[in-house]
Amino acid sequence: MTYRFGFLVFPNIQQLDLTGPYEVFASAQDSAVHLVWKDKNPVRSVTGISFTPDVDFDDSPQFDVLCIPGGGGVNALLGDEEVLEFIRSQAKGARFITSVCTGSLVLGAAGLLKGKRAATHWNAMDFLPHFGATPVHERVVKDGNLITAGGVTSGIDFGLSLLAELMGREEAEIVQLSLEYAPAPPFHSGTPQEASPDILDKAKGRIARSRQERERLVGQIA
Amino acid sequence: MTYRFGFLVFPNIQQLDLTGPYEVFASAQDSAVHLVWKDKNPVRSVTGISFTPDVDFDDSPQFDVLCIPGGGGVNALLGDEEVLEFIRSQAKGARFITSVCTGSLVLGAAGLLKGKRAATHWNAMDFLPHFGATPVHERVVKDGNLITAGGVTSGIDFGLSLLAELMGREEAEIVQLSLEYAPAPPFHSGTPQEASPDILDKAKGRIARSRQERERLVGQIA
Repeated sequence: MTYRFGFLVFPNIQQLDLTGPYEVFASAQDSAVHLVWKDKNPVRSVTGISFTPDVDFDDSPQFDVLCIPGGGGVNALLGDEEVLEFIRSQAKGARFITSVCTGSLVLGAAGLLKGKRAATHWNAMDFLPHFGATPVHERVVKDGNLITAGGVTSGIDFGLSLLAELMGREEAEIVQLSLEYAPAPPFHSGTPQEASPDILDKAKGRIARSRQERERLVGQIA
Repeated sequence: MTYRFGFLVFPNIQQLDLTGPYEVFASAQDSAVHLVWKDKNPVRSVTGISFTPDVDFDDSPQFDVLCIPGGGGVNALLGDEEVLEFIRSQAKGARFITSVCTGSLVLGAAGLLKGKRAATHWNAMDFLPHFGATPVHERVVKDGNLITAGGVTSGIDFGLSLLAELMGREEAEIVQLSLEYAPAPPFHSGTPQEASPDILDKAKGRIARSRQERERLVGQIA
């Protein structure tokens, strides 16, 4: 059997939220990975790379795994009924409904986080209760068939976990070895707990405007 | 000052070799990241995502950092004089000449590894001496202004190291926090040493054909 993975792509997506787990899934045997959006025109990510959807909402197959990446562009999706309805309709038939980074807020806006444990980027954790979810500070959080990952690079850890769940641990370990995933970060600054207060302030400062807009939008929904 | 990063893109590139360090560089302040190839038509990566170059060999600026990702498509570059000449010409003016995964073999074919310490994917280490390089089993290897990374995901570690070198450690730590890079692989299978012999055999089996072709090509050059 071939497992069908579908990643939502959208303007101002955070590309590594997508490309990390995409590479994991697409490196497995018996997988087909799709990029899906409203239409098939290229969409530009936050940092510049463009992605071309290969299916649109109308011709999309039912995915076994639906994944919503995050990024600044999430803000525009929170009130986009066409997107939320597509997600709800896929969620009915998918084996796993998943997200990376702030993609979980879109799942929340679609009503899929109610009563669930969930993760998101460290700078968005406080939004989760607005959607009825319990925030969990882990890289990969599984609650039934909902799997949500933490910020950006946690998508790789999520990808391998899900692969093991779907295809067995052996397949996940083969892919991990192929991608030489034995990370060795040169610094210890990957979480608000590890980073110095000064680094934390500066990192928050850079995304303050997007966060401010997000506060307003989430407030409107809740 | 704005630092200019140039990634070579090509048919059958391994996308995460590119997208990992791209996201690191592009998330920094004062950076401009370009995708460069012979022409500006989209190129398809091994696992499916297409990338559209924004500059070609003729209109490319001089990069501060030139980076060659790896992938199955590396084989076709090893004897491609147009590509090798572009790399040599950029290398003359670049502050850093870099690679991820099997991209170092292309640097080798361009004659840029002679007498240097270098890294590559674990399954390509034995090719390095053919280009006059000393293989080093580390995620990031620096020898003068040459920086070569190990397989695929080591590109993220490489990106952060280089960012610190260019812009200072503070900038690298801010980016690391933004990308929530505190990896937690669910399994211990990321290197041939960590993986079980059975997983190693299977991972090798999947890339055996590409490796066989590569042996022939490297033999012709050496």
